[in-house]
Amino acid sequence: MDSAVNEWVVGVDSGGSGLRIACAEAAGGRVAATESTREPVRTGPGGMDAGHLLAQVLPPVEAFLARSGGRVTAVAVGAAGMATLGDELRAELPRALARALGVRRLALAADAVTAYAGALGQRPGAVVAGGTGLIALGTDLSGWRRADGWGHLLGDCGSGAWIGRVGLEAAMRAYDGRRHGSAALLARAEERFGPAAGLPGALYPRTDRPAVLASFAPEVARCATEGDRVASRLLRHAAAHIAEAAAAACPAAGDERAGEVEVALTGGLFRLGEPLLVPLEEELTAQLPHARRVAAAGDPLSGAVTLAGALATGTLRLPEDPHLLYVPDH
Amino acid sequence: MDSAVNEWVVGVDSGGSGLRIACAEAAGGRVAATESTREPVRTGPGGMDAGHLLAQVLPPVEAFLARSGGRVTAVAVGAAGMATLGDELRAELPRALARALGVRRLALAADAVTAYAGALGQRPGAVVAGGTGLIALGTDLSGWRRADGWGHLLGDCGSGAWIGRVGLEAAMRAYDGRRHGSAALLARAEERFGPAAGLPGALYPRTDRPAVLASFAPEVARCATEGDRVASRLLRHAAAHIAEAAAAACPAAGDERAGEVEVALTGGLFRLGEPLLVPLEEELTAQLPHARRVAAAGDPLSGAVTLAGALATGTLRLPEDPHLLYVPDH
Repeated sequence: MDSAVNEWVVGVDSGGSGLRIACAEAAGGRVAATESTREPVRTGPGGMDAGHLLAQVLPPVEAFLARSGGRVTAVAVGAAGMATLGDELRAELPRALARALGVRRLALAADAVTAYAGALGQRPGAVVAGGTGLIALGTDLSGWRRADGWGHLLGDCGSGAWIGRVGLEAAMRAYDGRRHGSAALLARAEERFGPAAGLPGALYPRTDRPAVLASFAPEVARCATEGDRVASRLLRHAAAHIAEAAAAACPAAGDERAGEVEVALTGGLFRLGEPLLVPLEEELTAQLPHARRVAAAGDPLSGAVTLAGALATGTLRLPEDPHLLYVPDH
Repeated sequence: MDSAVNEWVVGVDSGGSGLRIACAEAAGGRVAATESTREPVRTGPGGMDAGHLLAQVLPPVEAFLARSGGRVTAVAVGAAGMATLGDELRAELPRALARALGVRRLALAADAVTAYAGALGQRPGAVVAGGTGLIALGTDLSGWRRADGWGHLLGDCGSGAWIGRVGLEAAMRAYDGRRHGSAALLARAEERFGPAAGLPGALYPRTDRPAVLASFAPEVARCATEGDRVASRLLRHAAAHIAEAAAAACPAAGDERAGEVEVALTGGLFRLGEPLLVPLEEELTAQLPHARRVAAAGDPLSGAVTLAGALATGTLRLPEDPHLLYVPDH
């Protein structure tokens, strides 16, 4: 217990595998406690269920305040699907948090925005968030540019699901004798999913097809590492797609408001290692010659803390947007 | 009523939009009557429901016999999914048809086999059947070679769903400013599905996603016809994939059993017209230099009639196969 601190902020990162919650000092942002749950927020007719979110967030925050004293002055919630499924949260969370915690400052952010803030803080630039899906978000601090993030059938080009899909396609090509097949990928696919002829039956009945596809991406990276040329070519193709999204989201070189811009990568996709990262650095250099490549400073939870801290201290610079970064009047 | 004919065969083509049934002369194969239903055969725990199939096939056949006299000597049923969903049909149809019609000769064929027999009869070669999906089947008459047909996430490369998917991806690229986008495809996509940002919400909740994707393929062809270079490039890419499947399925030039082989295209995909067919002819010439390109003689229903006729007259040359062309002992 740190009795010198009596103003706290709360950052929340809501995703497909549950919630992560951080309590941090309002000034400075030092994280004092974190909590995570394994239950994703339910969705109902109004989108994400505000009551279900609060039921998971409030108890650990109240327990923290009971231990630490002080009060919460701002909350930022980042959530996958906030743009399309956030209506109920936007309608109910401001009043509910005011009532429960006395909080008057709230931000509701798309997960791409908390990924951005985690990676680059409040500086202009572009961030690619890659995992099963892939989205790039950029800003010159006057507004947001979004590229891709359209899901596994319309885009998410270069994502884990994309890499897994083209890797399995190359496996099936080897199986039936079409060109551009890879015997190494076929061997991996059969190890993972059983005989090739049964692969459609193993994949299509699943409701989590993008995740199943993405689960094969590490095998593509492994085959590339072991010298498989088809796998290497697929990852170079993915790298080109990822850089295309970054380039479309990134403020232009001639944009005076942006000044020098930075580009960062965040998310599990980039743990595939060198077979993806080596061609990706080349593509970023070629496609974004004006942007400086930097490491992501933190994750989406730290981005939510950054947003909450900026709200608490009146220093929010990232642009408000009804779908991407919603800050209700208070 | 033709009292000179007293031996008939029945061909059945079972697909996603219902059944088509043809009664034809056992010798010669002249079709005397056809019937179609709009109800696809139900699937249950044993795969396709044999009782539901018979309930649709028997009444029109019995009515035909009542009008025409004579008897049915052979039946061939081609069905989408026969390989994976045909267990109950293989188990029950032989006895049920013997009981109901006195038929002792039966063939149960994958739809790709009836497509083959419709297009090339019993000659060696390769047939590409393209619609929402895409599969190529080839034979030297000693066995079958199959290429692709793995569905919209693992393959069906060059199919209607594939063309629609890459066309919509190009539309979203134009929308968010990535390279390789097409403003023309974006305009078509918004005409068909509403504002681009809502496209994921319009597509992903559907259970017939491959069909939704394929419904956009004609727009890609139209844009190509009107000079859109991105659309033309996508269709050339599709053409290369289609020829790859044909090449993998086709018996090799040096294969003595095959002799001269023919390659044919069948199915709705090839009604997309010149923007697909012109590059496809080029790709077929390049990838299958030893095969002679011929027009498909008939459709899968006529292929089922061909199979039934061959059974009736003891002239079946297409190779039996437990999953592709199953002929129970009689």
